[in-house]
Amino acid sequence: MSTRTVIRGGLVITASDELHADVLIEDTRIAAIAATGTSAADAWTADRIIDATGKYVIPGGVDAHTHMELPFGGTFASDTFETGTRAAAWGGTTTIIDFAVQSVGRSLREGLDAWNAKADGKCAIDYGFHMIVSDVNQDTLKEMDLLVEEGVTSFKQFMAYPGVFYSDDGQILRAMQRSAENGGLIMMHAENGIAIDVLVEQALARGETDPRFHGEVRKALLEAEATHRAIKLAQVAGAPLYVVHVSATEAVAELARARDEGLNVFGETCPQYLFLSTDNLAEPDFEGAKYVCSTPLRPREHQAALWRGLRTNDLQVVSTDHCPFCFTGQKELGRGDFSKIPNGLPGVENRMDLLHQAVVDGHISRRRWIEIACATPARMFGLYPKKGTIAPGADADVVIYDPHAEQIMSAETHHMNVDYSAYEGRRTTGRVETVLSRGTSVITDREFTGRAGHGSYTPRSTCQYLL
Amino acid sequence: MSTRTVIRGGLVITASDELHADVLIEDTRIAAIAATGTSAADAWTADRIIDATGKYVIPGGVDAHTHMELPFGGTFASDTFETGTRAAAWGGTTTIIDFAVQSVGRSLREGLDAWNAKADGKCAIDYGFHMIVSDVNQDTLKEMDLLVEEGVTSFKQFMAYPGVFYSDDGQILRAMQRSAENGGLIMMHAENGIAIDVLVEQALARGETDPRFHGEVRKALLEAEATHRAIKLAQVAGAPLYVVHVSATEAVAELARARDEGLNVFGETCPQYLFLSTDNLAEPDFEGAKYVCSTPLRPREHQAALWRGLRTNDLQVVSTDHCPFCFTGQKELGRGDFSKIPNGLPGVENRMDLLHQAVVDGHISRRRWIEIACATPARMFGLYPKKGTIAPGADADVVIYDPHAEQIMSAETHHMNVDYSAYEGRRTTGRVETVLSRGTSVITDREFTGRAGHGSYTPRSTCQYLL
Amino acid sequence: MSTRTVIRGGLVITASDELHADVLIEDTRIAAIAATGTSAADAWTADRIIDATGKYVIPGGVDAHTHMELPFGGTFASDTFETGTRAAAWGGTTTIIDFAVQSVGRSLREGLDAWNAKADGKCAIDYGFHMIVSDVNQDTLKEMDLLVEEGVTSFKQFMAYPGVFYSDDGQILRAMQRSAENGGLIMMHAENGIAIDVLVEQALARGETDPRFHGEVRKALLEAEATHRAIKLAQVAGAPLYVVHVSATEAVAELARARDEGLNVFGETCPQYLFLSTDNLAEPDFEGAKYVCSTPLRPREHQAALWRGLRTNDLQVVSTDHCPFCFTGQKELGRGDFSKIPNGLPGVENRMDLLHQAVVDGHISRRRWIEIACATPARMFGLYPKKGTIAPGADADVVIYDPHAEQIMSAETHHMNVDYSAYEGRRTTGRVETVLSRGTSVITDREFTGRAGHGSYTPRSTCQYLL
Amino acid sequence: MSTRTVIRGGLVITASDELHADVLIEDTRIAAIAATGTSAADAWTADRIIDATGKYVIPGGVDAHTHMELPFGGTFASDTFETGTRAAAWGGTTTIIDFAVQSVGRSLREGLDAWNAKADGKCAIDYGFHMIVSDVNQDTLKEMDLLVEEGVTSFKQFMAYPGVFYSDDGQILRAMQRSAENGGLIMMHAENGIAIDVLVEQALARGETDPRFHGEVRKALLEAEATHRAIKLAQVAGAPLYVVHVSATEAVAELARARDEGLNVFGETCPQYLFLSTDNLAEPDFEGAKYVCSTPLRPREHQAALWRGLRTNDLQVVSTDHCPFCFTGQKELGRGDFSKIPNGLPGVENRMDLLHQAVVDGHISRRRWIEIACATPARMFGLYPKKGTIAPGADADVVIYDPHAEQIMSAETHHMNVDYSAYEGRRTTGRVETVLSRGTSVITDREFTGRAGHGSYTPRSTCQYLL
Repeated sequence: MSTRTVIRGGLVITASDELHADVLIEDTRIAAIAATGTSAADAWTADRIIDATGKYVIPGGVDAHTHMELPFGGTFASDTFETGTRAAAWGGTTTIIDFAVQSVGRSLREGLDAWNAKADGKCAIDYGFHMIVSDVNQDTLKEMDLLVEEGVTSFKQFMAYPGVFYSDDGQILRAMQRSAENGGLIMMHAENGIAIDVLVEQALARGETDPRFHGEVRKALLEAEATHRAIKLAQVAGAPLYVVHVSATEAVAELARARDEGLNVFGETCPQYLFLSTDNLAEPDFEGAKYVCSTPLRPREHQAALWRGLRTNDLQVVSTDHCPFCFTGQKELGRGDFSKIPNGLPGVENRMDLLHQAVVDGHISRRRWIEIACATPARMFGLYPKKGTIAPGADADVVIYDPHAEQIMSAETHHMNVDYSAYEGRRTTGRVETVLSRGTSVITDREFTGRAGHGSYTPRSTCQYLL
Repeated sequence: MSTRTVIRGGLVITASDELHADVLIEDTRIAAIAATGTSAADAWTADRIIDATGKYVIPGGVDAHTHMELPFGGTFASDTFETGTRAAAWGGTTTIIDFAVQSVGRSLREGLDAWNAKADGKCAIDYGFHMIVSDVNQDTLKEMDLLVEEGVTSFKQFMAYPGVFYSDDGQILRAMQRSAENGGLIMMHAENGIAIDVLVEQALARGETDPRFHGEVRKALLEAEATHRAIKLAQVAGAPLYVVHVSATEAVAELARARDEGLNVFGETCPQYLFLSTDNLAEPDFEGAKYVCSTPLRPREHQAALWRGLRTNDLQVVSTDHCPFCFTGQKELGRGDFSKIPNGLPGVENRMDLLHQAVVDGHISRRRWIEIACATPARMFGLYPKKGTIAPGADADVVIYDPHAEQIMSAETHHMNVDYSAYEGRRTTGRVETVLSRGTSVITDREFTGRAGHGSYTPRSTCQYLL
Repeated sequence: MSTRTVIRGGLVITASDELHADVLIEDTRIAAIAATGTSAADAWTADRIIDATGKYVIPGGVDAHTHMELPFGGTFASDTFETGTRAAAWGGTTTIIDFAVQSVGRSLREGLDAWNAKADGKCAIDYGFHMIVSDVNQDTLKEMDLLVEEGVTSFKQFMAYPGVFYSDDGQILRAMQRSAENGGLIMMHAENGIAIDVLVEQALARGETDPRFHGEVRKALLEAEATHRAIKLAQVAGAPLYVVHVSATEAVAELARARDEGLNVFGETCPQYLFLSTDNLAEPDFEGAKYVCSTPLRPREHQAALWRGLRTNDLQVVSTDHCPFCFTGQKELGRGDFSKIPNGLPGVENRMDLLHQAVVDGHISRRRWIEIACATPARMFGLYPKKGTIAPGADADVVIYDPHAEQIMSAETHHMNVDYSAYEGRRTTGRVETVLSRGTSVITDREFTGRAGHGSYTPRSTCQYLL
Repeated sequence: MSTRTVIRGGLVITASDELHADVLIEDTRIAAIAATGTSAADAWTADRIIDATGKYVIPGGVDAHTHMELPFGGTFASDTFETGTRAAAWGGTTTIIDFAVQSVGRSLREGLDAWNAKADGKCAIDYGFHMIVSDVNQDTLKEMDLLVEEGVTSFKQFMAYPGVFYSDDGQILRAMQRSAENGGLIMMHAENGIAIDVLVEQALARGETDPRFHGEVRKALLEAEATHRAIKLAQVAGAPLYVVHVSATEAVAELARARDEGLNVFGETCPQYLFLSTDNLAEPDFEGAKYVCSTPLRPREHQAALWRGLRTNDLQVVSTDHCPFCFTGQKELGRGDFSKIPNGLPGVENRMDLLHQAVVDGHISRRRWIEIACATPARMFGLYPKKGTIAPGADADVVIYDPHAEQIMSAETHHMNVDYSAYEGRRTTGRVETVLSRGTSVITDREFTGRAGHGSYTPRSTCQYLL
């Protein structure tokens, strides 16, 4: 006998529809949707009834870019899979796709095994993995085929961080050629790291060591350059391309140009680029270090280009690039040398709320909110229609969202394992009330009712934006 | 007591989803959707069960551009609202938006009343009206406000046909300013008719009278010019813009440029531009006259730009611009003078099938098929979510589509009231089996079971693509 | 026996060279140039020797856009051919090309005769005529052929001023087609006057009557629109195009786009757009009226685009559009209604100095100064190599220019017949010392030594920028 | 007492003028130019009179890109400075700028000394050097400053040829930053050699070893990519950029885009890209090897973009990249492996004639011929006004050119030390008759009258296209 849950009376919002409808869940899946008040809906009996009157009923968020426990610069991102996924649930996100890392000289498999071990039994919500490819060689290329078959269908490469994650253009081309054959999707960190490292060295030599110089040396033009280069390499390889954390007007322009030509090129941005700026990087007393990430925050005027890109669909996804480091003890590693500040910001808990605020502010519509935060990331990375929508047959990952509640973001109240909030004191409208993960209530009326290990590993099919 | 219909076992395709689901209809509306095989679905009892196993279950098509009974060049389009909407139903289209015409010197109201009278009690499927504004003046502008409130929320203007439908740039600007205020949407026939008329006169003076010269004088550059001009006028007015029947590569480029800048500019194309070309206009023995429409058919190489525009969403809608004239007696009016050939092609019955063929041929995905043919036209013109989707609460306008059946398009078998087919002999894969219009079966297993007068006038809300 | 003049020791600057050279003039022409100090130079004997040591020796300016005595808005431009050409000489300009005007319903010939009569015997420097075509018809088109043969090789049309100079797109297309055949060059006033007149009417209805509203209603987008339209019509006609008085960033962009495609499209700007802005139009007490011209002055940030266009050669010519109206009695006609302010600014005397200031300020090089002010206008309008350069065989139109002298522009000291200066109080570096017109000294050490009637009518060959 | 030569009665053509003028040469320089038939001209007495009636009198060509005796792939370019400059003279070129090469691990000075030694006393015409920078480090950067002061003012870097000439983006950025300070000009071989080497390896592994695969692996997109990257790096550095041997439509588009933005970016193409194509590379029996150079020949349709670029000034210079290897014994090194074919084509003797043919064919005007082949290369590389023009004070490098003579290009008749002609059998109109180098006749009525060692090393000032 199955367990039946009915969510009554809410406004169901998906990427394409807004319906006054009741949602029937049988066990872990959405079984049916019926117009509220119809005899079909009223006929439903249930073990549990959730009253969503006056609330939104939305798909759980899909955050396609997180880095739990990432080793970086001699330390580790401060959220474990346990703390990070719990915080995600608090923020209305029910799926993350994290990044397993290949070390140079090691196999993809070793990296993937290591990350599986970290996450296994710890997560509050479902999760999958992309694979960071640090060492393209003939063995790696063969492993890529296997991983795609297993459900690790996307591979990240870096045009930055020489000596660590960096791939040269030949390695990129080879990986793209392979993905063109096996259906994988290359995700690109697009910054010209070789040129940036020259500027870093020169800045430090001039005594420019404060966090704000991180933003000055990682120039928008060098993001645009790398974006263009990645696009051309993908075009040569006949492969699709997904550019992560796009932050600069000039980079959006390169994506728009490529898309006008009909290329399968996609772009992701993050809330920090939409809501923060170099003003934050310039905060005194080393506070700017809290906002050090790469690509870096840009001057405020870039935000308009990002919002426009989200509206024109030149940017398709908003992920968080969640990669928190505590100010005390971690960010402080870079006092006196901005290049030693661990790169990353906390955000996995804030994304759905910040984007709802964008709805309130008139930047995007409600449907577009769900599209960029749930449906498109799920489709892009092969999780649709299990994730990212509310439809019969989909996993019952559902959020009851109160669009009128107000909250103030703060490190004191958030659930991420980090000692500061990038949005400290920011007042937003809208709040997660209840979160179901495969039918199980992990947040219930603003209480955490989930558990480590509820979340399960989710293999993925390939990108659904390629005809 | 309501009448209940269940459609079992098909693949439900909407603009955003593909679901193996059963659909429950209560009276005229879709009441619920349930995953096939779930207890929720199996619990449904029904007065009628339609077996859709192996078939697609799709929203009825929305054709946003038809001209039934249009007076043009001293004759009338050969399909009446009765014959035309019946043919539409045969082709899987369940809603048309036709154009009421303001005559110069008359009010909008008079035009609308006249068209309402023509359609009333005749239609097999639901219908609405756009309003052709031929005479912008202070009274017209005030009437526009009233019409928007009543549900005629879109207004067409012509940059071509001086002396008939033509509006000058001042009239266009005024109408756009008004629509920016009242929420209406200006639809534009974008060709520089003043310049074209010079070229027509010169061609005829040179003895170039054959149908193919129709294509030569109505130059792609003059479509692009007018498209750009309409965009700039809309930008000055702060108004959105919908460009009808885009046919030229250069015009698509103007739309793409405007959209990259974030302007609310939309574009429609038609099957004839996607599947036919100037090769048809050059058919001997005056046969080319069958393909005379404006904007004209273009050389074959323009088709790739249109398909690309549909993929990149620089074009959003495929309508038919259905405006049939019989070859015998009507098209023949232009023997010896191409400028006297009535402008227009039949197509209302062929659109859904031709676009499904585009799916088969790999031009577009199944979801995009439904998006450009059903969902977007419904949203663009304020019919969503009643029309254009399969969702609880929507009108039960549903097509059971056999994706494997083959057919050959022909005047001998089509149901449009015109003596030729623009696609004579074309073999396509996919065929409409059954069509429901608000729950009533108007095509049942390839039999017409509807009636004149079943279709009802549908007032529309405003465009849903403006935040 | 010829009269021989030698200019010794100056820096001869042409569009392509900077030479330390002596210049030998025999009668009205430059006979030879020799490197200063060579035996060839030293061998020259002369009736007159001008010492140019420490000075520039440059070609006399060619101002391709003036309107002496133009009837406009019920009054006449305040400079006659006598006063205007005298002022031009003071400013280092030795050739003007003014505009003869066809009245609607009259022939080109009548207009040309009238203007010849106005100028004949009055001018201090040489002059030619463009023809303003206000009424394109079959007779006009035939007359165009004759005029080209006679030396009136350029024809101006207006997309603004409906009811006065305005041509519709059909008239423009016909004139362009004709010029494509007869070698003439169409000059275009590119503003969408039909749309602008709507905005003028609306502004006045709102009580916006001050001069600054002239700038607001004549929108940059409507200049860009008309520029694009003119380009497309020229492309259809296969004709070259010269756009006059380009003032807006967006219009420069259209020219750049067309030139990138290889089209024969040229652009002119004027000193007022490079040095003045809407700040001037907003000067209180109706002083803004002094700066009313069309296209209008733009916000200051447009200046950078114009300078860039001059550097990238997307703009090729700087003319003045000299068309002065006294503040008292003429500009005042528009108190309470900006649309009644006569359109035009004085400037024929200031151009060479302002552009030299641009050299001093680093906007352009010395050679580019001569190119945009002398050589290119001469080539563009068929006066080269008689005018616009210093070369053996060319007319001896030569200016001795002191690059170090300073001056302050002012109505008190200028020689134009108008009661204000658009550049009142502006301090510039560089000053005309001596001016030769066909070998005759018309300005001699800052004294006017010319006479009305010295200047002679100069028929022109066709544009030299078409292969 | 000086030696005086007068060239009588020719049409003197420079980048800006076409004059019927006599030219007076005193010793090594042009002393004066006088209009033919004036008393000034007729007064000249001379030791030698050259009758140029019916001929063109043009500046000697400046070929800014040659590689005499270049070591490449285990062999040496087959023209020595002696044979190569003699051939250049035969072809109407009076100045070459060759490339001295820094070896990895060695100083710039060592390379320059070596090249000076090769050329010293051997050249028939004047010459200068660019410096190929293969190893950017702190010492190299300091040496760049010294070289600029000495007259080696331009530095070439390679984005191709990893392991040989290749610089990474950091090395490029540093060199550009240095040139931004010291006035040097970076010349870039813009191809993504890292990616190309992957494609080379893959092609060879597939057995694609014929010369035509050289063209297939060196993709136009990878030229465009590198061009864009070089532009962005130059923009970051605030430096100008000169891109050598541009061959692809897409690369021209990148240059056009940069120039529209006002960047100091320049482009050179070569006759082989204008006149030859991949059709040549595909010639059977390994004959295609004759046409192997990098960037490679492109499909024929790219030629139109290059001609358009030359007309729109998005390309400014035509050089030869003269780098000949004999078919027998040198090109043959690559039989069975296209990557071993020495890269380069002979052409120093053909350039002026091929470009005159372009005048005859209507691609460019006569003045533009001189501009792209003489004046602009001289200005670009600091040789103007000594070289590249006919003006008083300039070096008497003068060519008497017969525009009506016909010739057939052939290895049997050419003077380059190479066993084939890339233009074998091509018939052209126009021929060099007499060539003066600094007043000395090195070709006299189609006889070589020069000598090795007449040509002298010419230090250069900096680029004259930067304000």
